[in-house]
Amino acid sequence: MSGRRAPIVLLTDFGTRDTYVGQMKLVIAGIAPEAPVIDLSHGVSPQDVAEGAWLLDVAMPYLPEGSVVVAVVDPGVGTARAGLVLRSGTRLLVGPDNGLLSVGLPPALRRAAARGGSRVELEEGWAWRVENRSLMLPAPSATFHGRDVFAPVAAQLWRGVPPEEVGPPAREVVVLPPFLAEAAPDGTLRGEVIHVDRFGNLVTTVHGSQVGRDATVLVGDARIEGLSRTFADVSPGELLAHVDSSGFLEVACREGSAAERLGLGRGAPVTVIP
Amino acid sequence: MSGRRAPIVLLTDFGTRDTYVGQMKLVIAGIAPEAPVIDLSHGVSPQDVAEGAWLLDVAMPYLPEGSVVVAVVDPGVGTARAGLVLRSGTRLLVGPDNGLLSVGLPPALRRAAARGGSRVELEEGWAWRVENRSLMLPAPSATFHGRDVFAPVAAQLWRGVPPEEVGPPAREVVVLPPFLAEAAPDGTLRGEVIHVDRFGNLVTTVHGSQVGRDATVLVGDARIEGLSRTFADVSPGELLAHVDSSGFLEVACREGSAAERLGLGRGAPVTVIP
Amino acid sequence: MSGRRAPIVLLTDFGTRDTYVGQMKLVIAGIAPEAPVIDLSHGVSPQDVAEGAWLLDVAMPYLPEGSVVVAVVDPGVGTARAGLVLRSGTRLLVGPDNGLLSVGLPPALRRAAARGGSRVELEEGWAWRVENRSLMLPAPSATFHGRDVFAPVAAQLWRGVPPEEVGPPAREVVVLPPFLAEAAPDGTLRGEVIHVDRFGNLVTTVHGSQVGRDATVLVGDARIEGLSRTFADVSPGELLAHVDSSGFLEVACREGSAAERLGLGRGAPVTVIP
Repeated sequence: MSGRRAPIVLLTDFGTRDTYVGQMKLVIAGIAPEAPVIDLSHGVSPQDVAEGAWLLDVAMPYLPEGSVVVAVVDPGVGTARAGLVLRSGTRLLVGPDNGLLSVGLPPALRRAAARGGSRVELEEGWAWRVENRSLMLPAPSATFHGRDVFAPVAAQLWRGVPPEEVGPPAREVVVLPPFLAEAAPDGTLRGEVIHVDRFGNLVTTVHGSQVGRDATVLVGDARIEGLSRTFADVSPGELLAHVDSSGFLEVACREGSAAERLGLGRGAPVTVIP
Repeated sequence: MSGRRAPIVLLTDFGTRDTYVGQMKLVIAGIAPEAPVIDLSHGVSPQDVAEGAWLLDVAMPYLPEGSVVVAVVDPGVGTARAGLVLRSGTRLLVGPDNGLLSVGLPPALRRAAARGGSRVELEEGWAWRVENRSLMLPAPSATFHGRDVFAPVAAQLWRGVPPEEVGPPAREVVVLPPFLAEAAPDGTLRGEVIHVDRFGNLVTTVHGSQVGRDATVLVGDARIEGLSRTFADVSPGELLAHVDSSGFLEVACREGSAAERLGLGRGAPVTVIP
Repeated sequence: MSGRRAPIVLLTDFGTRDTYVGQMKLVIAGIAPEAPVIDLSHGVSPQDVAEGAWLLDVAMPYLPEGSVVVAVVDPGVGTARAGLVLRSGTRLLVGPDNGLLSVGLPPALRRAAARGGSRVELEEGWAWRVENRSLMLPAPSATFHGRDVFAPVAAQLWRGVPPEEVGPPAREVVVLPPFLAEAAPDGTLRGEVIHVDRFGNLVTTVHGSQVGRDATVLVGDARIEGLSRTFADVSPGELLAHVDSSGFLEVACREGSAAERLGLGRGAPVTVIP
């Protein structure tokens, strides 16, 4: 597919200290040497499928048309879990069938999923099982499908192999529901910290569309009254809550780390009085 | 601008654990899919504009002709601080107006700046304010101008949009003076640790041109007599001072970490008897 | 060499916090702007030549034909140690003469090396000394040959400069023996932890070909009876031993870190009763 410039995009929990990501890139370069490769991130917390799904969800609007995404957060590698190719508009997502890729599905289909993820039936044309061994490396290992299965399949898709050749339609896949806080009977929203970023900002599953400017945020020992627009709305060292660049509610500390300040991390509960 | 191969170069304090850098690259790929993108570093200490400026300063001589640099260390994001495009020979630098980009200006212009940075008047042709919203993403967020403003503007510049189209001339910008140690009345030089590298080497603001082979370096509890040429000039575990590959005075420990050994980090004062 | 798409592959102990790797990439982009550059890893433990060699060894089968590798783990930089270009089939490896590159030599030649590495005589055509200063940056620094010597030489090789032009044949180079555990007189195998990965998995120098399914692994306080095929063969939190995707014996902990669990790291001894 000469002249094609859509990227292959990588998201994993492999980190960059090891050569795992490098080996995946070598495999891609061997099959599709012209493909631009973009690292979305390799810093997903180890084996944290939900965090990986959230990071992918947030990046979806920025994926160029025709992108092929390889997403690998795969605690079930080596078990009977399937590998998938999932279609999301003009993009193709490749990875394990554990909910990670399901953020590429339309919200209407995702709302059918139970909290924590569940198997959802799909019509033909949404997803395929990765089974065609002629598209993988010979003798795939039991523990590194990122290199031996998903990277070579993604490179072949990028070259123009249609997803139908990867394997049979996947009629039922693991789907995570949309990231949204749940409304409790008393009207408060209950979410959790889904990601702690480099600055110690606590990003939550409370979506920006769920909260107004006057909301009160309860997290750890802190009670934050009202949302800020940006960091500069509070004094240095002060906590704030705002809808961040991902569209989700974030608890931050100007010129400091909210995670350290509050002693909180991934999974900490957050309550919002809207 | 087909056939163009100068890179877009990224320098930020975003780290690589999150998807912030990945999102910037997706935005660039959507606008300028042919542009090679090089990570200079994303490891600037959070919101440390001076360290980021120093890292960019040191890399300037290695930037290929025609490079477009996106540099984002931006504690003032969301405030009234301007965004800039600054011309440095054949290179263009894009980022916030807080001194970070000013290392691209000729030393003669930088010497007009006060210690710590100050606003300096520029003639037309040096810098432009980033104001043309048609070159940004729609509805830029208040907290992630790297993705929503600077990355798309850089991609447009790379494609050939002239800087004049980005916005009006910036006639006054924040400028940092050249990195040099100050001479005290007693003739000693007073600098500081501007960067601690992965090996625990302490790089200082004392420029190599300011010191001779016989200089004495005082840092923390240590007194180092004379400069070495390379690590092998001392025994394993021993401290040394030398002019490193950046051209600045560095305090190091052979086969060890000077930072750990001396318990010092970014900002620690350094005195040199030249 | 237009149309050429083999990559330049980087492996260093420079980390990604600093701009060292970024500066190498800028130098490459200035000489060979069309060259795709792949980071194998920059997370080699500082100055750990053996770990770097092992990481390169494991990646060799995945290097595309015609790749040029720049590998820099270089505690001897600035001393009289030579720089090398080493031929490994259609690949060329560039870096210091300290054993790091020797994993590119055929096992038959590597077996001549003593444990810990030793100088081995080579016939002409295997290796060349990096001496041609016209291929380096002007005035190379004493401490950063990665940027000033090896990156520019690799970019020139990628452009088609033959290795013979880099310098005279290297007739004797430092070679590390193949990574294999030694057999003790009692028939047990004695190896060590050569790499700790992001997940806390302990990868050892015991090669998969040396052990059977029923082997017993002794490491720290643990005694592991029998090898697993994959993580799912044990319960969450339990230790296992398996031949991992690198082909070497690895001690791991399902959904946990074996390194933390056992309090062990790089260099820890491992005994196997085959």
